Amino acid sequence: MSLKIMVLLFCFFYTSPVILASDPDPVQDFCLAQNAGPGLDLQCKNSSLATVEDFVFSGIRSSGKFKFKFSEVGLSAIPVNSKVFPGLNTLGMSFVRADLEPRGINPPHFHPRATEIAFVLEGEVYSGFVDTQNRVFAKVIKKGEVMVFPRALVHFQMNVGDEQATILGCFDSQNPGLQRVSSAVFGSGIKEELLEKAFGLSIKELTKLRRRFTPQHKA
Amino acid sequence: MSLKIMVLLFCFFYTSPVILASDPDPVQDFCLAQNAGPGLDLQCKNSSLATVEDFVFSGIRSSGKFKFKFSEVGLSAIPVNSKVFPGLNTLGMSFVRADLEPRGINPPHFHPRATEIAFVLEGEVYSGFVDTQNRVFAKVIKKGEVMVFPRALVHFQMNVGDEQATILGCFDSQNPGLQRVSSAVFGSGIKEELLEKAFGLSIKELTKLRRRFTPQHKA
Amino acid sequence: MSLKIMVLLFCFFYTSPVILASDPDPVQDFCLAQNAGPGLDLQCKNSSLATVEDFVFSGIRSSGKFKFKFSEVGLSAIPVNSKVFPGLNTLGMSFVRADLEPRGINPPHFHPRATEIAFVLEGEVYSGFVDTQNRVFAKVIKKGEVMVFPRALVHFQMNVGDEQATILGCFDSQNPGLQRVSSAVFGSGIKEELLEKAFGLSIKELTKLRRRFTPQHKA
Amino acid sequence: MSLKIMVLLFCFFYTSPVILASDPDPVQDFCLAQNAGPGLDLQCKNSSLATVEDFVFSGIRSSGKFKFKFSEVGLSAIPVNSKVFPGLNTLGMSFVRADLEPRGINPPHFHPRATEIAFVLEGEVYSGFVDTQNRVFAKVIKKGEVMVFPRALVHFQMNVGDEQATILGCFDSQNPGLQRVSSAVFGSGIKEELLEKAFGLSIKELTKLRRRFTPQHKA
Amino acid sequence: MSLKIMVLLFCFFYTSPVILASDPDPVQDFCLAQNAGPGLDLQCKNSSLATVEDFVFSGIRSSGKFKFKFSEVGLSAIPVNSKVFPGLNTLGMSFVRADLEPRGINPPHFHPRATEIAFVLEGEVYSGFVDTQNRVFAKVIKKGEVMVFPRALVHFQMNVGDEQATILGCFDSQNPGLQRVSSAVFGSGIKEELLEKAFGLSIKELTKLRRRFTPQHKA
Amino acid sequence: MSLKIMVLLFCFFYTSPVILASDPDPVQDFCLAQNAGPGLDLQCKNSSLATVEDFVFSGIRSSGKFKFKFSEVGLSAIPVNSKVFPGLNTLGMSFVRADLEPRGINPPHFHPRATEIAFVLEGEVYSGFVDTQNRVFAKVIKKGEVMVFPRALVHFQMNVGDEQATILGCFDSQNPGLQRVSSAVFGSGIKEELLEKAFGLSIKELTKLRRRFTPQHKA
Repeated sequence: MSLKIMVLLFCFFYTSPVILASDPDPVQDFCLAQNAGPGLDLQCKNSSLATVEDFVFSGIRSSGKFKFKFSEVGLSAIPVNSKVFPGLNTLGMSFVRADLEPRGINPPHFHPRATEIAFVLEGEVYSGFVDTQNRVFAKVIKKGEVMVFPRALVHFQMNVGDEQATILGCFDSQNPGLQRVSSAVFGSGIKEELLEKAFGLSIKELTKLRRRFTPQHKA
Repeated sequence: MSLKIMVLLFCFFYTSPVILASDPDPVQDFCLAQNAGPGLDLQCKNSSLATVEDFVFSGIRSSGKFKFKFSEVGLSAIPVNSKVFPGLNTLGMSFVRADLEPRGINPPHFHPRATEIAFVLEGEVYSGFVDTQNRVFAKVIKKGEVMVFPRALVHFQMNVGDEQATILGCFDSQNPGLQRVSSAVFGSGIKEELLEKAFGLSIKELTKLRRRFTPQHKA
Repeated sequence: MSLKIMVLLFCFFYTSPVILASDPDPVQDFCLAQNAGPGLDLQCKNSSLATVEDFVFSGIRSSGKFKFKFSEVGLSAIPVNSKVFPGLNTLGMSFVRADLEPRGINPPHFHPRATEIAFVLEGEVYSGFVDTQNRVFAKVIKKGEVMVFPRALVHFQMNVGDEQATILGCFDSQNPGLQRVSSAVFGSGIKEELLEKAFGLSIKELTKLRRRFTPQHKA
Repeated sequence: MSLKIMVLLFCFFYTSPVILASDPDPVQDFCLAQNAGPGLDLQCKNSSLATVEDFVFSGIRSSGKFKFKFSEVGLSAIPVNSKVFPGLNTLGMSFVRADLEPRGINPPHFHPRATEIAFVLEGEVYSGFVDTQNRVFAKVIKKGEVMVFPRALVHFQMNVGDEQATILGCFDSQNPGLQRVSSAVFGSGIKEELLEKAFGLSIKELTKLRRRFTPQHKA
Repeated sequence: MSLKIMVLLFCFFYTSPVILASDPDPVQDFCLAQNAGPGLDLQCKNSSLATVEDFVFSGIRSSGKFKFKFSEVGLSAIPVNSKVFPGLNTLGMSFVRADLEPRGINPPHFHPRATEIAFVLEGEVYSGFVDTQNRVFAKVIKKGEVMVFPRALVHFQMNVGDEQATILGCFDSQNPGLQRVSSAVFGSGIKEELLEKAFGLSIKELTKLRRRFTPQHKA
Repeated sequence: MSLKIMVLLFCFFYTSPVILASDPDPVQDFCLAQNAGPGLDLQCKNSSLATVEDFVFSGIRSSGKFKFKFSEVGLSAIPVNSKVFPGLNTLGMSFVRADLEPRGINPPHFHPRATEIAFVLEGEVYSGFVDTQNRVFAKVIKKGEVMVFPRALVHFQMNVGDEQATILGCFDSQNPGLQRVSSAVFGSGIKEELLEKAFGLSIKELTKLRRRFTPQHKA
């Protein structure tokens, strides 16, 4: 047993937990994710200790802050996956609240592991996605309307109304993931020559884009 | 070919289409469900004919009517599965709008094929579910709060505020199904003796319940 | 850090592991579930230590006892999921033996995570399920006959013969779960007002039902 | 029975029915498979025409005949998949009844698409499987005992008692498939040279085996 | 009713079937996709008509042409999904051969429905992907080396050697889909204002990009 | 290489690692499998410590050795599953390199948990599989051609050319498993009487086969 603890201690400096579970049918009513120790994946909390609070989430009553990274685009997003809301673990779903200032945008992005159903709770939103034939399906939808973005296809939104818009997105994965096209391509450090050719950009244009989307250049 | 048509015609009097597709990973961007002929399951509409309208749903902007079957409980529900909104077909998700009058209830029920994430858009709702250990997890949640009901477990809601409450439910199946406990048990025609024993009810009590939940007795 | 170890030790006395794995395709021949320590999910036993006994179950050779909780309904059930029979872990299946005394019943219930195939090994059993359109599909089936109960739909059985009946149920989940409608609704502590409205019952009638199905009232 | 054969023959000229549906979560309560016309996959029968008979199977009340193909091994097997019992379609399960004469065997075989749970209903059966490390897990199990054969691994049975043995097998696929090792290898027409090398057999030995397991040589 | 037939005939000239089946476990050995008629999804070919040719593909023995759409990037790709190779239908896999001229690139793209394993058959290839934390994982890999691109994450390749490079990609979906970031974002017709804000580009820069990637501007 | 063996031996006394994860949709970008301690399943390595090397595999640049167990058949196989290449963990795929000497064979075998796509990189290979109707689908395929072996069906290969042949196999499971028919049946220790009956072999013939395929007799 003390050996086990030493091994655990040893691992501590090299690892930290990550969720291993997958999105298929659950094999129990629920599995509230919790840390079990250094180097270990999240484990199910003893189900007899579950309370109603484990299944309720109160963090999207109001919009998130607009100050951060994507403030320039007028977007505030609060993604709520199983890491944030452990009650979702193994249940195959998660959600997000996104608020857009007038003319604010949710830049082109996709979720590698989920379909999204987006509900417009407030405002008027130009909303759409692109299919694998490069056709765009987009229109302005209003409060009470709903749009579906098929799994892992690029989609986007823009507030075209005069008031703040609020969107509720729902996913069929406990951790859908998010890849913003601009940051993934221009902000991750892909070889310059490759990007020049891929986009037909000059070095100068490319440098501007890379500067914009690379984290260290934003400080 | 004309033989095929005759066969199709023949089948027409015996069958009508039902969705065969299943909820796993899709194998195309989308598959807009449409009828292809008598006796045939729904088929994918030619994807080159898809328009943005196929992916937008506008039918839950306002609450449904409170006049029907469950009017006595003060509930209006608009379930939106892939039959109602063909754009959802093969994408593994669907949703529902439920409105509750003050003191109105959404009676105990479950969805055989889905987890549900329920967002309270308006009002104060006593909301909960029962796990397979017969423990109830319930509390009053308010506008902006969210509760998750694990797959196929009995859950329920009651408007405990003074105003109409609105709930948006999201499912990880294109056709989650709905089984109301009261109607399934007392309104379906299960043998009387079995129900007497199952619930310890007298014949008189049972008859009252069966009358209440059996469709033909409601006319 | 030693605090964490204390926490782990502390948990040992309060928690019991729960299976996290899910019901999809296995990624190894088998994974015999075993405890690995306090607060940890079940782990795969070293496969080189597996013996044939790990894959054989001998606990349903005779009926279980009729004395317990559901004795009044003349039912004895021995559910055999992956907790009881660790060899089932990750293999996606489990089973149950149910015995019914003459006129005994298996009250309306459902399994949230599985289809069931029920084999009548002995006797004559009124057997059926209710679909999501509230239609009942029920009839008397006899020794050697088989009925299928689609995933997560309410079903029930009653011994209508003169001898004890024996049923073997097989599930496509290692842990199908069980929700008895009567106990889930009347024995879990759902708010009284909600149940009154849901079932149209008087407080007196409801109190009787709640007393019957609430564990603490049975002592 | 001969009527059934005539029906099958009749269908042969008009249909090439093959089940396309897959074994994941269903998206409706049930989907009773039926032919919809020549060249078409099986379709869901109109669910409003479903009756309880669609969900009950009566064909395994007694053992099948021992006269056919595998009579020399003393085995009678009645596989019941979704082709035989359309009510199983999309529900992810199927089953088999196997009877073994004393010293009769169920030769080494596997089911490419399913785990099997085998219940010994009568008799004493030497029963086992081989894992991918070539370890055999086998023992004699008796009436009332149960053994699990993990997905797609070679398994086998032999009646070691004095009476006929009866086994009920349950699968987590509506069409598990069956590949008998002897027939697949020696009776399918694989190039002789390959088999000689694979098994280290002389041409004479191999010819004997191929004659035994090749259908045309059995007439 | 004859109207319906006319509709079917009408559709014949306007539609081409799309595969509805999904990527989970198959329920038969194989299902060779074939057209069954206008407006119908692909159906399983009668399995008794299958020949070995149905399971063999000979179309990637040499590289595809470099003349088309992506010639300017020095890429030739031959994607082989279940539409091209019907034997793959329901089997959950597909593949691609990609050839790169010296300094040629496979621009940043992703497959919405699959993980990819990429084998370098010839040459030296700078190869990488970006995860959802915007970290790039890239290096030069050579003949005989293999890289895995996790499901639906942006990845890319560039021939950094002096000879033509050949890559074989393998997918865990019969139709993984392909979304090239450049074309999806700049060539699909997303509202200009949204793109300006998303990328911080001037109208002039944006117009250049849109012209490059919009099909009609390429003629 | 001997270092690797020492590492393996070292691990033997401290761990019984077995992969628990399953092959469905991942719930994170990737999960690099690593040991976390004795008796524990593999866990996800802290994702922030991932490097590009974790996703690249260099071990199949040349053929494996032909000296081992199956040397008599002229086969060298290097299976690369998630145990060998931890980057594959949870991504649902793996692969194998197989080299065949002239007239060398890959004996009849199957992968219990995967479809295989086999690419002939060099040589001429008689290649085929057997379906559950015992039909063989086999032919000689050459460099650049591809054959698909449906999930868990028996398949085989023989080099019919004059040069060494090289095959690349790709699987839709991170751990497809391998069951060689000859070893599983004759080399695992199944009761002699059962095999005699199953194959119609004399004791002498059977003994020869068992000796050939039983590990302890090979020393």
